[in-house]
Amino acid sequence: MTENAALEATMRRALELAANGPATGPNPRVGCVLLDESGQVLAEGWHRGAGTPHAEVDALARLTAGAARGATAVVTLEPCNHTGRTGPCSLALIEAGVTRVVYAVADPGIDSSGGADRLRRAGIDVAGGVLAGAGEAFLADWLVAARLGRPFVTLKWASSLDGRAAADDGTSRWITGPEARQDVHRRRAAAGAIIVGTGTVLADDPALTARDAAGKLLPTQPVPVVIGTRGVPADAALRSHPHPPLFFATDDLLAVLHDLHRRGIRHAFIEGGPTLASAFVAAGLVDEYLVYLAPTLLGGGRLALGDIGVAGISDQRRLAIDHYDRLGDDLLVVARPR
Amino acid sequence: MTENAALEATMRRALELAANGPATGPNPRVGCVLLDESGQVLAEGWHRGAGTPHAEVDALARLTAGAARGATAVVTLEPCNHTGRTGPCSLALIEAGVTRVVYAVADPGIDSSGGADRLRRAGIDVAGGVLAGAGEAFLADWLVAARLGRPFVTLKWASSLDGRAAADDGTSRWITGPEARQDVHRRRAAAGAIIVGTGTVLADDPALTARDAAGKLLPTQPVPVVIGTRGVPADAALRSHPHPPLFFATDDLLAVLHDLHRRGIRHAFIEGGPTLASAFVAAGLVDEYLVYLAPTLLGGGRLALGDIGVAGISDQRRLAIDHYDRLGDDLLVVARPR
Repeated sequence: MTENAALEATMRRALELAANGPATGPNPRVGCVLLDESGQVLAEGWHRGAGTPHAEVDALARLTAGAARGATAVVTLEPCNHTGRTGPCSLALIEAGVTRVVYAVADPGIDSSGGADRLRRAGIDVAGGVLAGAGEAFLADWLVAARLGRPFVTLKWASSLDGRAAADDGTSRWITGPEARQDVHRRRAAAGAIIVGTGTVLADDPALTARDAAGKLLPTQPVPVVIGTRGVPADAALRSHPHPPLFFATDDLLAVLHDLHRRGIRHAFIEGGPTLASAFVAAGLVDEYLVYLAPTLLGGGRLALGDIGVAGISDQRRLAIDHYDRLGDDLLVVARPR
Repeated sequence: MTENAALEATMRRALELAANGPATGPNPRVGCVLLDESGQVLAEGWHRGAGTPHAEVDALARLTAGAARGATAVVTLEPCNHTGRTGPCSLALIEAGVTRVVYAVADPGIDSSGGADRLRRAGIDVAGGVLAGAGEAFLADWLVAARLGRPFVTLKWASSLDGRAAADDGTSRWITGPEARQDVHRRRAAAGAIIVGTGTVLADDPALTARDAAGKLLPTQPVPVVIGTRGVPADAALRSHPHPPLFFATDDLLAVLHDLHRRGIRHAFIEGGPTLASAFVAAGLVDEYLVYLAPTLLGGGRLALGDIGVAGISDQRRLAIDHYDRLGDDLLVVARPR
């Protein structure tokens, strides 16, 4: 194996380690492999979530003092240069005597970037961009959040093949089948927040929890977020959510997202209704679309999306289909803005 | 090979022969293989369209007089019992001295069925249902037409992911990409008629021809059919169609379909607009849905389907997805009524 191929294989292992970390939470999932001068693995580590050691420090902690001298650190994200609840990883690597650092993805964080420069100033050989594509794909949501200072936004709706979210009288249970509904719950559980408008709360009284097929709560739950100026009843189901709901009586969606980002939320899941969904689309604040299409026709006036500010075909909001899956009788189309 | 397996292999060959026939036109595509007493192939035949010999007669014509005595005829459709532009196949088989007839699909035709009974009365060993599934699938459209006395009806629309057929100002060129548009033209060419409402004629002035990517007419063209009471201008593009257009100033869609069936049309392709499409859906007259979904969002009020008579979710028109295909950037969903 050439040295490059060996480093790429090690980076793949580091990405595997990173995937052990929690998918939700404010911090990126990062993995690290320490190699000795002959390319043998000295130690592995990964980040277990906010407040716990970063991947590099987790790997170093498995070695006795001095054992990392002359080592190469292969890490999925540029080592941070930031003192938060833990010290900067770049400093930990320097102090451990690591002589080379290879990473996949540059840290876009305003506070945390600059680690590579700090390492280089300490005389360490630094190479970024190894398996950058795989690394970026793995951290896609978190990178959007870090770059934009707001959560990655997924807009989900379920509709009939003719684009209706409900029958004309408002009834909609159920348009999609159990497989599609379970897919939504799994994705809810992986999101930091679930956002709805007050209209949906008043019409549907949703619990906004992530549940399994038997109705049992999944281990992680998104924070319920309600946007709108209408009052939410004291006995609304979402008030019994494991997380206290957040209420925003505003139409400034970007301000809401910035607020959620400050609270450590990196992925927000918009579940409706049509008014709120359309406002997010019109504001250009959707990073990913999940459209669950049920093989049924409803006609009528209850649309999944309303006015999104498109007057003529030249203003259409072009998307690119990322992938699509059959879920039971239904079809899930995952798309992104072009 | 067992005798059953050998007969099935021969039936597969007969289906291959059938596929040589023309996909459009009033008659079914049928193939026939004549076997001698040892199971060797004596002759093959297929039907080349209305006014030409049926498959059985086509195969018999390849033999000298008497050569089919004692033979087995393997044919994809029950031999007809009908004197039209050609004599009944059942009689031809009897006269040729065939002693056994094996077929896949029973003839549902009001005038043409009864061939198996006639053969049996003449002392011939008759077995139906060999590879019936494959045979029915091959003749699906024609069988619907024969059973219902009307053409098989395909409803096609193209829409954005949010179910709009056009932007709010009516502009819609183009929502789907060239691959999807070419797919529509290929399917138009395979249909006997293309049906639109007068609203679409007045709004879009469509040519209603089947064209290749360069705009050249494909070898077969559907008959253009216009339904509605509004006048169609003398210079409308569809008046230059290779087939003279048919006009029906009625809202009795079933009567229109019966009329088309009497004219020999077995497959009608409904291309809109939303009012006509919705009327066909509401009337339960759609056998197949082709939904071309473009990865774009339009919002607004120009929907692919309008009122289809569904008030509540319990009235929804459930479909089953037959299959779906990616066509360039777009997605084609093929569905049937459940």
